[in-house]
Amino acid sequence: MKVVTFGELMIRLQPFNYERFVQANNLEFSFGGGEANVAVSLANYGIDAAFVTKLPAHAIGQAAVNSLRRYGVDTSKITRGGDRVGIYFNEKGASQRGSVCIYDRANSAIQLASTADFDWDAIFEGVDWFHFTGITPALGENVVEICREACKAAKAHGVKISCDLNYRGKLWTREQARAAMTDLCQYVDVCISNEEDAKDVFGIEAEATDIYAGEINREGYKSVAKQLADKFGFEKVAITLRESHSAFDNGWSAMLYDVASNEYCFSKKYDLHIIDRVGGGDSFGGGLIYALLNGKSTQDAVEFAVAASALKHSIEGDYNMVTVSEVEKLAGGDGSGRIQR
Amino acid sequence: MKVVTFGELMIRLQPFNYERFVQANNLEFSFGGGEANVAVSLANYGIDAAFVTKLPAHAIGQAAVNSLRRYGVDTSKITRGGDRVGIYFNEKGASQRGSVCIYDRANSAIQLASTADFDWDAIFEGVDWFHFTGITPALGENVVEICREACKAAKAHGVKISCDLNYRGKLWTREQARAAMTDLCQYVDVCISNEEDAKDVFGIEAEATDIYAGEINREGYKSVAKQLADKFGFEKVAITLRESHSAFDNGWSAMLYDVASNEYCFSKKYDLHIIDRVGGGDSFGGGLIYALLNGKSTQDAVEFAVAASALKHSIEGDYNMVTVSEVEKLAGGDGSGRIQR
Amino acid sequence: MKVVTFGELMIRLQPFNYERFVQANNLEFSFGGGEANVAVSLANYGIDAAFVTKLPAHAIGQAAVNSLRRYGVDTSKITRGGDRVGIYFNEKGASQRGSVCIYDRANSAIQLASTADFDWDAIFEGVDWFHFTGITPALGENVVEICREACKAAKAHGVKISCDLNYRGKLWTREQARAAMTDLCQYVDVCISNEEDAKDVFGIEAEATDIYAGEINREGYKSVAKQLADKFGFEKVAITLRESHSAFDNGWSAMLYDVASNEYCFSKKYDLHIIDRVGGGDSFGGGLIYALLNGKSTQDAVEFAVAASALKHSIEGDYNMVTVSEVEKLAGGDGSGRIQR
Amino acid sequence: MKVVTFGELMIRLQPFNYERFVQANNLEFSFGGGEANVAVSLANYGIDAAFVTKLPAHAIGQAAVNSLRRYGVDTSKITRGGDRVGIYFNEKGASQRGSVCIYDRANSAIQLASTADFDWDAIFEGVDWFHFTGITPALGENVVEICREACKAAKAHGVKISCDLNYRGKLWTREQARAAMTDLCQYVDVCISNEEDAKDVFGIEAEATDIYAGEINREGYKSVAKQLADKFGFEKVAITLRESHSAFDNGWSAMLYDVASNEYCFSKKYDLHIIDRVGGGDSFGGGLIYALLNGKSTQDAVEFAVAASALKHSIEGDYNMVTVSEVEKLAGGDGSGRIQR
Amino acid sequence: MKVVTFGELMIRLQPFNYERFVQANNLEFSFGGGEANVAVSLANYGIDAAFVTKLPAHAIGQAAVNSLRRYGVDTSKITRGGDRVGIYFNEKGASQRGSVCIYDRANSAIQLASTADFDWDAIFEGVDWFHFTGITPALGENVVEICREACKAAKAHGVKISCDLNYRGKLWTREQARAAMTDLCQYVDVCISNEEDAKDVFGIEAEATDIYAGEINREGYKSVAKQLADKFGFEKVAITLRESHSAFDNGWSAMLYDVASNEYCFSKKYDLHIIDRVGGGDSFGGGLIYALLNGKSTQDAVEFAVAASALKHSIEGDYNMVTVSEVEKLAGGDGSGRIQR
Amino acid sequence: MKVVTFGELMIRLQPFNYERFVQANNLEFSFGGGEANVAVSLANYGIDAAFVTKLPAHAIGQAAVNSLRRYGVDTSKITRGGDRVGIYFNEKGASQRGSVCIYDRANSAIQLASTADFDWDAIFEGVDWFHFTGITPALGENVVEICREACKAAKAHGVKISCDLNYRGKLWTREQARAAMTDLCQYVDVCISNEEDAKDVFGIEAEATDIYAGEINREGYKSVAKQLADKFGFEKVAITLRESHSAFDNGWSAMLYDVASNEYCFSKKYDLHIIDRVGGGDSFGGGLIYALLNGKSTQDAVEFAVAASALKHSIEGDYNMVTVSEVEKLAGGDGSGRIQR
Repeated sequence: MKVVTFGELMIRLQPFNYERFVQANNLEFSFGGGEANVAVSLANYGIDAAFVTKLPAHAIGQAAVNSLRRYGVDTSKITRGGDRVGIYFNEKGASQRGSVCIYDRANSAIQLASTADFDWDAIFEGVDWFHFTGITPALGENVVEICREACKAAKAHGVKISCDLNYRGKLWTREQARAAMTDLCQYVDVCISNEEDAKDVFGIEAEATDIYAGEINREGYKSVAKQLADKFGFEKVAITLRESHSAFDNGWSAMLYDVASNEYCFSKKYDLHIIDRVGGGDSFGGGLIYALLNGKSTQDAVEFAVAASALKHSIEGDYNMVTVSEVEKLAGGDGSGRIQR
Repeated sequence: MKVVTFGELMIRLQPFNYERFVQANNLEFSFGGGEANVAVSLANYGIDAAFVTKLPAHAIGQAAVNSLRRYGVDTSKITRGGDRVGIYFNEKGASQRGSVCIYDRANSAIQLASTADFDWDAIFEGVDWFHFTGITPALGENVVEICREACKAAKAHGVKISCDLNYRGKLWTREQARAAMTDLCQYVDVCISNEEDAKDVFGIEAEATDIYAGEINREGYKSVAKQLADKFGFEKVAITLRESHSAFDNGWSAMLYDVASNEYCFSKKYDLHIIDRVGGGDSFGGGLIYALLNGKSTQDAVEFAVAASALKHSIEGDYNMVTVSEVEKLAGGDGSGRIQR
Repeated sequence: MKVVTFGELMIRLQPFNYERFVQANNLEFSFGGGEANVAVSLANYGIDAAFVTKLPAHAIGQAAVNSLRRYGVDTSKITRGGDRVGIYFNEKGASQRGSVCIYDRANSAIQLASTADFDWDAIFEGVDWFHFTGITPALGENVVEICREACKAAKAHGVKISCDLNYRGKLWTREQARAAMTDLCQYVDVCISNEEDAKDVFGIEAEATDIYAGEINREGYKSVAKQLADKFGFEKVAITLRESHSAFDNGWSAMLYDVASNEYCFSKKYDLHIIDRVGGGDSFGGGLIYALLNGKSTQDAVEFAVAASALKHSIEGDYNMVTVSEVEKLAGGDGSGRIQR
Repeated sequence: MKVVTFGELMIRLQPFNYERFVQANNLEFSFGGGEANVAVSLANYGIDAAFVTKLPAHAIGQAAVNSLRRYGVDTSKITRGGDRVGIYFNEKGASQRGSVCIYDRANSAIQLASTADFDWDAIFEGVDWFHFTGITPALGENVVEICREACKAAKAHGVKISCDLNYRGKLWTREQARAAMTDLCQYVDVCISNEEDAKDVFGIEAEATDIYAGEINREGYKSVAKQLADKFGFEKVAITLRESHSAFDNGWSAMLYDVASNEYCFSKKYDLHIIDRVGGGDSFGGGLIYALLNGKSTQDAVEFAVAASALKHSIEGDYNMVTVSEVEKLAGGDGSGRIQR
Repeated sequence: MKVVTFGELMIRLQPFNYERFVQANNLEFSFGGGEANVAVSLANYGIDAAFVTKLPAHAIGQAAVNSLRRYGVDTSKITRGGDRVGIYFNEKGASQRGSVCIYDRANSAIQLASTADFDWDAIFEGVDWFHFTGITPALGENVVEICREACKAAKAHGVKISCDLNYRGKLWTREQARAAMTDLCQYVDVCISNEEDAKDVFGIEAEATDIYAGEINREGYKSVAKQLADKFGFEKVAITLRESHSAFDNGWSAMLYDVASNEYCFSKKYDLHIIDRVGGGDSFGGGLIYALLNGKSTQDAVEFAVAASALKHSIEGDYNMVTVSEVEKLAGGDGSGRIQR
Repeated sequence: MKVVTFGELMIRLQPFNYERFVQANNLEFSFGGGEANVAVSLANYGIDAAFVTKLPAHAIGQAAVNSLRRYGVDTSKITRGGDRVGIYFNEKGASQRGSVCIYDRANSAIQLASTADFDWDAIFEGVDWFHFTGITPALGENVVEICREACKAAKAHGVKISCDLNYRGKLWTREQARAAMTDLCQYVDVCISNEEDAKDVFGIEAEATDIYAGEINREGYKSVAKQLADKFGFEKVAITLRESHSAFDNGWSAMLYDVASNEYCFSKKYDLHIIDRVGGGDSFGGGLIYALLNGKSTQDAVEFAVAASALKHSIEGDYNMVTVSEVEKLAGGDGSGRIQR
């Protein structure tokens, strides 16, 4: 099975341990981005996953490519060119202090890319699944257009499409997001969202849930999923449910709505002690795509995806470094953290 | 607004992560000290904060000065001279294992300083607030005398004075402390204490509270604050309330007693998962001075000070690296630790 | 008092922080092994502790020796020879993700050792206690034979013998373990086990306890201890009780059964937030031997041993770096983790 | 004495040790830039040095400010605003492998600044010296205009102006450079150049010198200096002479031409074993300004400046961390590198 | 163009900086091996390079695979299985102190592999060049047999074969080496050797050269190359010439003998200041294969290969991280180490 | 054979790599001191070496003890007590920049020790050799007295005594040194000095040698050695000859004068590229004592001692980590730095 994901791969610069930016003297130098993270997850599960983007030909662009190759992602479809790799500075939060993310991604190679940079017909040859997120069209009107071409070509090749709504208020307004995503979502088969994204992008709300308070309103989530599916004709809608108690402690679960069977399956909930929260949602997407590609039931699929992302929260960096057997062990109930020896 | 603090700035040498001294091969090299920590807090809040001490002219003394300049503290009033910078070796505790602090501060430049080293009239020109702690007079009778001169000059210049009692049993006896602090406290307007300090220094006790058990006796704290205020004529008394569950988990709150209005305001309590506990009390002092200088109400002032010090517990090093807006965000109720992106 | 322990000392290679093997670029280079860990514990308590093994004469073997000398273990009885030091790669778990331990210990110097490598009569001259674990005979039939010679010589010299059953399924089968341990246990005076080991090695079970669920069945533990003592004529049987909630959070306690007095003493239970779980059991053994050598009561002995191992879980590396006074402080009730200053 | 320098302060991101970008997992996080480096040099010599630029208000911008404050540079004239801090990725060369510098500085706050961002009349109040380099006007026509306003204001306040030609071919063409620098140099009193810059910017050449071969043609350098002085009416022209044998080994010396006395003073030459070559030229500028401000003779001034920059090549980072006495010790002849104890 | 190399990939464990093993507390965790190093060199030159070996399926084996994927090597032909990855501990020398290499490679997956593990007909489909070294058959008689099958299959597919003699006295005797290599060399087209290897393996000697003294006898090298070519019918023989002055300083050059044209081309000699000497010979092999595949002349080929390996000596780790343009820049004469900015 | 050395063991705090103190954020945490360094050298050569000093009972004192135990030094004669371990801050020089050493050693446990702290009769039981340096009596008159008692007891037990003059101008004046050392040297059998020490302590000079210029005057050295021997009745006098070209490059050799045979043996000279210069002289002492204890000839002894110290200059830290075979390999002529594999 072959999956293609498309988006931006950024440099991630992070102070060591829990240092603040103003006291840092060194930075961890890694890479990440929503769709690239999904590709790494899938490659680690043994899926033939290709990531498509545009990256400069220089050594920093090469380091970005290498970060994906290291974990087995097919980087042969990446267009090389442009001047810069987008950057995000990430300061880890701790206890009551939240993480701080400072973006320096304007004018990256992918943000300045044009439709001529990608030959989607060639890219989708023999591909089963295409994934992108709402961050990518948020990069600019030109990138919306590239996404549109990608979606059309994917449909033409019979490729399933999944999209994580992922609203980023620093990149575009709600109005811009709604216009672009309303258009793109017509091609999408599987939609991933959280409660905030559905509201920010489409104004769709669940009732009586306070995300800061960490309470979960099951009926509310079902309502959001149904509204999304009804509006865009999605086959499946996944909604992730995060309860933020502190930078260290989160509750984490999800619901998957399967339209055909009219099933609303809620996963078990994990009480996470977080090592690295970034990429948590992406690892859910990676787990979900793997589960659906492998024909798991709705309940099993959401359990696999949530277990995968629960594990991600214990791993440094954007990329989720887990195997199928590790995910299945946790989904199967062993979260005791005992030494395997 | 301009604040001056006076005390010792020590080298802080700490093994990496949770290593014990006997297994350490490297040490983090930073600086800290009660009053210097307060100055850094204030500088980070945008206050013109100067720190007064004596430090050697050599490169290690210069590194100490630089550590303050980096965060915007005015170091132009520091007297350069003497031979050594005091040192404290700090081993971080974890879970049931407490932190270990080994002092090597005897014979530091400030400990051997004389009244001739400081021209307090010049120092207090245009200053609004003066802060010191009980650690400074504990350095020796000569330093008690310097503190006395400072307090007198401050009073002469109409400068408000705050003092954190901060009893250090390794530096002096309870009797020495009581004698010196009874004298110095007559100049003090705002007193900061915890339950132990009030008892160790002045024999003032709250009833029925077991600090190890983590229970809080509100009436007891009010009683301590009132006794302190009555004895010395303080305008305000702040009492910090720490519940030590383990090296990682503490409850943290405080009470501020305003004599004029006869208000006893208790802050909300934070359940801290601790990154670095050192400087926690100092960051409370910094927050309190900022709040009072800015005319916050008694309740808002204690909430600001407690939120500031809650954040400090999530930050490596003695110095509290937070902005006013970060403190106000937490004081305003968002301790969810969510990523700011 | 003089103690000898015998077993394998391995290189421990561990990624920094919570990195996974596949993302690691550096490894912590330390050493550990069940019986060596016990020797270090005892040396840190001021006991004259010697560790016996075989290690290559080259620089890596020397580094292994040095790791013990650093903490005061007598290494003069170590036979130098052979080609390799066994290795274990240890990846720390976090939250729901368990630790991963990959052994690369086959063909180590000690595994290929012969009875001619050790002069047990000389080794046990003036010794009070001998300790080994079930890991050592699991290295091979030749090592079972060495253990047998050691036990016989110990008995001949009037040396007390303790054994931690420590079943390792990657090294031998349950049948092999049962055969060898049934023979060796006839020499043992003090047996240390956990519920799983007693079952894996001897088929002895407690009723109605689910180790994954974290519930403790006191009667079950007593039954296991009694069965073990009855079968082998042990003087004392200690059973450690771990409740694995996650890689970070464990409950930790133990029971010590004294046959002569027919006492079953349960320790208090610690809620651990774990820094390093490896060597937790060994530190219990070290604490127990110290306590018994020093004539502590059954209750005091188990409290000391459990407090010692509770502290170990807060310390990086296999070796427990604590002093008697630190253990007694915790056993005496102060686990508040307050700074000692 | 008070000096102002104006230019860009960039983030410097450098792999550890001699790693290449494509193998790096961490980066050193420091700051540097031609004119900022000069300001740090001067602050370390005890001069009141202010650096003027524009930097974002966010935490990364604050870290840039802090890097200067740490070493005593006056940052109160820095305009805060804009979105990004320019970046340069620096890979250290070794032996035959040259350093690689990848710039990611487009659209930085200073590059997008306007003349309205700086109140030069206020900035030059009480200032003795103004320094900039050819890198700053190369940032764009708007920055040329800012430089012009700065120069005019400086002249109006009787401030001496020095300029290091510093041609950067990646920022502008020779034609652009010549136009802008011809205009700006009419305000300049002291010009610093190397042979390449004089040729690249103004087409002024020395004869018969091959910079790759490392031979020095004294008459050629004198000719270049004289042509520069004649063309722009400079009071003094300094020319630095680098012989590049490898990334580790350089010869380093300079010549200072004093027009009034018609002296051409060549310094002694140092055989450098390089730790960090970046900022080498800037440290020469810092040394020269200090020497001239302090009334040193032409020969002494060039010896001080060359010794200062020789020391810089032994120091990590852009900033030169040396004291006047250290420079004078080397200029006075002691380059034996003996321990000072 | 497609190249296959075959051999062992080992874990390389190295103390930080210039630490000795006995003082190390951390180790760099990288991978290397003669033929894998060649594959990485070629992948960095843009060649489609596959590495063939056997590696365990566990996470350490995966880390080994990832180290190659990161740099673009095709790892799809690697057989997964077996228990261990071979290890070499590498302690860097400095000045008069030589590097120390302690091998722990016995019983690695590849050493215990059988001919059934590799389907050479499939592997050589569409391949242009096959490379191995004398280290691989030295692993055991079974591996000699695998090499023989590989060579036969390569010949059958019209693949050019190169071999670096690389005698390792710790792995086999001169007699064993001579027997195996005499057989395997009959398939080889391009032989790479140094003076010692030719003597150790085949007893072929140059006259009057003292490798310790660093003198080069051109006629002697020509004689060795000619004897090798005559004996085995090689098309080309390359001989690398290392002058070892100290652990830091080496002279480095080579000669390439082309039988058809009877040319003996000596390269220029580089005076290296060494960062990492391991893999120096392999990078020569990688450069030579690239040059010959691209039809460079004999002189250009040896210059390219020597420049490539000169650069390798400036790079940490076994792998040579350079591009074709970097090699050509040095081969073209610019070894000044100037910053490229 | 058993050797005892006596002196101070200090904490050595050193910035990473070539950082200056003012830019350091971490420090290497090791230990060193003239006589302790000699003890480590000897222990590494297999000699039973004990180090005598006084160190505090706290964890930092324990870490000091452990640093010696790690390398096999007998620490059982160390008196535990006092408050502090002396410290020296060491900043590594590079190229023309010299190392900077800032001492913070006043009031250390050993400096405040009294004669009652040491039972020299017990210490010298069965000992063959006693070594101290001129640094130890420089700590204070009380320590001179301890040295005197030690020397007398050593003589009474028939122990050979060696002394390295090692003048430290920061600890005492030339007059104080001359008085104390004139007294102590009457007990000494083997004197180690360099040209400066002989002059500083005793006013004994060689003619026509300029230590900065690096020229060696053989007759001058012989004259100094003879004068020393004549004055104090030494059996042997060793003089080390350092040529300081830069912080990286030194020439290193020595001369040993044997009075009985009237031999003046000069060693070969090594051109060192220095990794760590501290402890260079001590490693000479360690090598010399080993050589003399093992009955080497005068020429062989000086060659061994110089080779040992040449190797030390390539090793991080105060301690020389080399084996006898490594020293003999270099003394025997192989300084090529080739990999041993």
